Amino acid sequence: MIRHTVAFRLKHNPGSTAERGFLQAACELAKIEGVRKFECLRQSSLKNSFTFGLCMEFADEAAYAFYSGHPDHTAFVQQRWIPEVVEFMELDYVAYVP
Amino acid sequence: MIRHTVAFRLKHNPGSTAERGFLQAACELAKIEGVRKFECLRQSSLKNSFTFGLCMEFADEAAYAFYSGHPDHTAFVQQRWIPEVVEFMELDYVAYVP
Repeated sequence: MIRHTVAFRLKHNPGSTAERGFLQAACELAKIEGVRKFECLRQSSLKNSFTFGLCMEFADEAAYAFYSGHPDHTAFVQQRWIPEVVEFMELDYVAYVP
Repeated sequence: MIRHTVAFRLKHNPGSTAERGFLQAACELAKIEGVRKFECLRQSSLKNSFTFGLCMEFADEAAYAFYSGHPDHTAFVQQRWIPEVVEFMELDYVAYVP
């Protein structure tokens, strides 16, 4: 299992129609084959400057690569992510086996 | 539900006894009352410099505050976290309700 997460901050005003529109579009990524446990989240810690997060899981590296290269994902990145996201950080997690 | 996460990098060599010892001590935090779905994870993305992560959930802010102020947590922070962690980032998530 690979948990792919990204925390981000939008250029839009909080609570704006533009903000809702972006998050709605982001939620469409859940439909890409291989995406599991997709979540759109609000980032609530004051110890960083991100305001939202996406979290999803993949069975393995192949499923993750399929998602990354999927035309719906690459179109979202070009048409929505790059123009509307001010800053972001990706963190991916796998189980720690001592 | 509040999901509390922290990504971090240790001063220890990868695979070292010191690294294992730290992570083992971190896993003891799961025993604090109110901590749910505790996970010790390996951070695998090359897009940041963190190598491990902890993830846990709390029912509400009161449970989170109880954990933060719990003597087992504050002792861990003083005795292990501060001396052994080189850098970290906390991200907390709650559900996004459009």
